[in-house]
Amino acid sequence: MTNKPIILITNDDGIHAKGIKCLVEAMKEFGKIVVVSADESFSGMSHAITVKDPLYIQDLGEKDGVSYYVTNGTPVDCVKLALHTILDTHPDFIVSGINHGSNSSTSVHYSGTMGAAREGCVNGVPSIGFSLLSYDADADFSQSQKVVKCVFKDVLKNGLVKNTFLNVNIPDTNEVKGIKMCRQARGKWIEEFVERADPRGRNYYWLTGDFKNMEPESKDTDEYYLSNHYATVVPCTIDATDYASLNENKNYEL
Amino acid sequence: MTNKPIILITNDDGIHAKGIKCLVEAMKEFGKIVVVSADESFSGMSHAITVKDPLYIQDLGEKDGVSYYVTNGTPVDCVKLALHTILDTHPDFIVSGINHGSNSSTSVHYSGTMGAAREGCVNGVPSIGFSLLSYDADADFSQSQKVVKCVFKDVLKNGLVKNTFLNVNIPDTNEVKGIKMCRQARGKWIEEFVERADPRGRNYYWLTGDFKNMEPESKDTDEYYLSNHYATVVPCTIDATDYASLNENKNYEL
Repeated sequence: MTNKPIILITNDDGIHAKGIKCLVEAMKEFGKIVVVSADESFSGMSHAITVKDPLYIQDLGEKDGVSYYVTNGTPVDCVKLALHTILDTHPDFIVSGINHGSNSSTSVHYSGTMGAAREGCVNGVPSIGFSLLSYDADADFSQSQKVVKCVFKDVLKNGLVKNTFLNVNIPDTNEVKGIKMCRQARGKWIEEFVERADPRGRNYYWLTGDFKNMEPESKDTDEYYLSNHYATVVPCTIDATDYASLNENKNYEL
Repeated sequence: MTNKPIILITNDDGIHAKGIKCLVEAMKEFGKIVVVSADESFSGMSHAITVKDPLYIQDLGEKDGVSYYVTNGTPVDCVKLALHTILDTHPDFIVSGINHGSNSSTSVHYSGTMGAAREGCVNGVPSIGFSLLSYDADADFSQSQKVVKCVFKDVLKNGLVKNTFLNVNIPDTNEVKGIKMCRQARGKWIEEFVERADPRGRNYYWLTGDFKNMEPESKDTDEYYLSNHYATVVPCTIDATDYASLNENKNYEL
């Protein structure tokens, strides 16, 4: 059993979330699991790192063969702490989630779950983020667990291209029709701020909003397949360069 | 003067940073400037949004024709608050920075300065992030101001492709040789955590590290040009899909 892969699991909903427990359960058969997560939720933390505060790590010990560590850092901090402080060796895989809520389309940029997967990829570790399209703290992750196993088996067999990580989203349905690899839809959050006044008369604002698919006519996007009850796998790159707009002979007169 | 473009300026070093003051100074000639920034530094905050706390906005009034607002939010929050609450209309441009420190290569993913530019782009506003390769609070931004004007004049004349935003980095030199449009280098932070013990005997960790260009042999990257004293313009996309790895006929057996 010395060749068992080491699998780092993290998330952005915190170590007590149902999603990460269900992910550990689904992944257990594939290797030695090490969980490094925060003691609170870091939703919407994107690829943020903690530079102004010190980071703490608490070793919670082993339970049922799984090692647990809790930190006060963001999901990306958790990955960095795992790679550079907690683990003696680089993990073979990083798996993040299962997020309570969608990370499809441009939500990939706001997501702490996907930040952790991107950070794994930057460090050369094959990494996957999983998200269920339900914000319910007690959501049913049974279909998601099937998708996790299926996608991970494929990565285990075929590997992942260097500098590529996977953004996997799962529809909130009792019967996932299948799994489609596809591109990210163009979309954005139509924001509103709810305005309130505090007891001292100062106005304050709560961020709220709805996601809008900006290309509802397209039939090859994650949004399209998710709305048709398919799970989606978007291969993502850490190279943000827009090659279609890149003109290396561009003349700027300084 | 009713056709003067409205230019939203933000950053991640906070409203008191020298970098944002120098950016305002450089941009003033191009339109009506509205500054929305935080009262503290949000370095390393990436594309993070604030979902657990309410946001406050303080109207600091107008000075020399420039309107100033300070918030307690991240750079992306600042953009959202400006678009949906502070401004009556969408700005014509969003300009972020000038950051104290490089945002070249994969640092684009950690940067709050670039998070703000990406958020502008998601919302359909032509957006640019500027960064100087010096962390000095009192850095010399005179060369950067020339680059800002030159790049902005080009955007004003030629526009930006939809879904593309610009990541502009400026070398810390007295004489910038020119401005090159190029791709993002492959690179990563070689991290270390400095370990200390608090008075109660608990260990804590400070994140630190050095950036490493993973393709030092390449002569077409931002890292290459910056090290040769050129400013760099990387066109960036909000579509994270890795089209080279995308296989729409991929068969996952659920």
